[in-house]
Amino acid sequence: MADLRGGDLSRLRQLNSLTAIRAMRGAGPLTLSALAERTGLSRPSMKEVADELMELGWVEEVPPSPGSMGRPARRYRFRADSGYLVGVDIGGYNIRAALSDLDGVILAETRQPVQLDATLEERLAAIQRAVSGCLALSRTAIEDVWTIAFGTIGVIDVEGRVVYSAAVPAWRDLDLAGKLREIFPCQVLIENDSRLAAMAEHRRGAARGAKDVVFLHVGRRMGAGLIIGGKVHRGFGAASGEIAMLPEARWFDAPDHLNTCASVPEGTPPEDAAGYTLAAARNGDPVALEAVGRYIDDLVVGTAAMVLLLDPEVVVLGGGFSRSADVLLGPLRERLERRCMRMPEVRASTLGDECVVTGAIDYAVDHLDDQLFTPDRGPLPVTR
Amino acid sequence: MADLRGGDLSRLRQLNSLTAIRAMRGAGPLTLSALAERTGLSRPSMKEVADELMELGWVEEVPPSPGSMGRPARRYRFRADSGYLVGVDIGGYNIRAALSDLDGVILAETRQPVQLDATLEERLAAIQRAVSGCLALSRTAIEDVWTIAFGTIGVIDVEGRVVYSAAVPAWRDLDLAGKLREIFPCQVLIENDSRLAAMAEHRRGAARGAKDVVFLHVGRRMGAGLIIGGKVHRGFGAASGEIAMLPEARWFDAPDHLNTCASVPEGTPPEDAAGYTLAAARNGDPVALEAVGRYIDDLVVGTAAMVLLLDPEVVVLGGGFSRSADVLLGPLRERLERRCMRMPEVRASTLGDECVVTGAIDYAVDHLDDQLFTPDRGPLPVTR
Repeated sequence: MADLRGGDLSRLRQLNSLTAIRAMRGAGPLTLSALAERTGLSRPSMKEVADELMELGWVEEVPPSPGSMGRPARRYRFRADSGYLVGVDIGGYNIRAALSDLDGVILAETRQPVQLDATLEERLAAIQRAVSGCLALSRTAIEDVWTIAFGTIGVIDVEGRVVYSAAVPAWRDLDLAGKLREIFPCQVLIENDSRLAAMAEHRRGAARGAKDVVFLHVGRRMGAGLIIGGKVHRGFGAASGEIAMLPEARWFDAPDHLNTCASVPEGTPPEDAAGYTLAAARNGDPVALEAVGRYIDDLVVGTAAMVLLLDPEVVVLGGGFSRSADVLLGPLRERLERRCMRMPEVRASTLGDECVVTGAIDYAVDHLDDQLFTPDRGPLPVTR
Repeated sequence: MADLRGGDLSRLRQLNSLTAIRAMRGAGPLTLSALAERTGLSRPSMKEVADELMELGWVEEVPPSPGSMGRPARRYRFRADSGYLVGVDIGGYNIRAALSDLDGVILAETRQPVQLDATLEERLAAIQRAVSGCLALSRTAIEDVWTIAFGTIGVIDVEGRVVYSAAVPAWRDLDLAGKLREIFPCQVLIENDSRLAAMAEHRRGAARGAKDVVFLHVGRRMGAGLIIGGKVHRGFGAASGEIAMLPEARWFDAPDHLNTCASVPEGTPPEDAAGYTLAAARNGDPVALEAVGRYIDDLVVGTAAMVLLLDPEVVVLGGGFSRSADVLLGPLRERLERRCMRMPEVRASTLGDECVVTGAIDYAVDHLDDQLFTPDRGPLPVTR
């Protein structure tokens, strides 16, 4: 067999450390024997790896389980609380923030309303308030936050600049990453909101375990996020999912059918009109039902384009309107069936309004994993 | 460091063998020192691996290079000729076949014309003639062919059954894989033709090195193939790429603009009409140019849907009409630019009519690699 040279040796040692962290992440405290079994390492090697990881601050020993018999076995766990992650959903009307540990377990959440046409300063201030609220709720100092991941409406390029934003005037031609890095002293990530929502539904929601997923981000605005081969598909210039920009896909104006329905009483605030129509349809109002039908007639065109092109396993109806999935799913399935080669499963989002902020946390966790688990990225950093 | 146990040892030995085969594939004869350098193994380990692979029939020693000074060094090469692969393009009007070695180097090609409405027996007979022609040209016995990969029009499910075939009546509801396995005594693979064409352009043609590619398979019929993350995207039920089935994408009838152009002289066979229009447009015929414009107006709708959704790096114009890329690319780029968020590169196919048959060979090579390089798939088979 091949001899292992010096470089191979230290690389193998590092791979063992990462394998050990992976085995501990998201699991409870594990004994050395349990860890050795999960990693395939011998017990003495595992002990060496665990000692090294403790020294670096990634792992800690926890007291033996109470009531255990005989000589208590050492137990180790990943220090998910050695740092924190924040996810932020920058929506048109709401800023949501969530704070999690390094395993992505959410510890606090806040929401700040904002006007669609707020100035840049007002929007940035609302973002700061949302994040500060999360920190206060969880009694966390901003210095202990490693990464803030933002999900935003609009098309953002790979450098974090806003390339296109029809809905939010303050966003136009903005170096959003630059602005946010001025405000927050940690690592700042930015991603399209629909892609983050797709990621969250795939990781924790309605599309868990599916390889190829089309996520419909439908509400007052329309978007789409794709999971392909188990991964979020960004596209070459981070501009994927913009099917709503094709007039023939009939997505852009689709919500107007719900907004302008004759069943909506005069004086209803415009942002509540669609919700009113959907509620009326649930109660059997024939005018509202017809409006919902016309909405689905449009929604199905862009949806069928994506399904015919990608042949996904699952289509998830998410975003604000997914609260009315009971009204929407039936007609959507029925029309999609008539237009598709192979009918995918059509499911309602399980994360609802939390999909983007949850996806932002998942994105930050992934980014941490990338930093940890990329081969040849050098030795593990010290956490304290 | 971790101790390597018995199972690890034999697995490491196998990984070394596969690493060595990978280093030799597609390369010329290599000395032990060159192989040791490429694989990272020590020279004695490399010698052991090479001896084992020779015994299994995967590798052979070649005579020292003529005129080399001193004691001639042993040289080894992958026995790409220890078996053969065949690729077949089952088109509407032509059956093409190609024969290659295990590295995918094409050694012979043939073509058999066939009627679109030929009976099943006629089609299968044409396929047999095309394959036999290839074998005769390269003096290869069918027993030495390991795998035949077929690319076909129509939607084929994961079991190789035809789910949908509007153009070829003989294909309808056919267990195509079953039929072909009755005829050919080797491994039979079936894949959609547009996906194979996309694979070939990505592997050897206009889209080499690109991660995300939209391949337009345009000619008398319309199809699309996607490369996502460097891999062909099949979809959950192997039904991806069927954007032409969406009426709003305006692909299905698009070629009619070229087929029914007033510039085409009476009596032109219908299968030559589009070619005539494209040639007339190249010569500046205003009526033909207008027909091309209307064709591109339609073509761009489905194309924009795919580009907006996937944000690919490259769009390749392939298929029969790609011979007229000089006439088509300009107007296509111009219209696509107006409709896209981020304009991809738009290139003409470099493989032309050979794209599907070449992709079928590439697919067979990949399948061989999968069999060889899948971890834990057991020891290497003996080739002779």
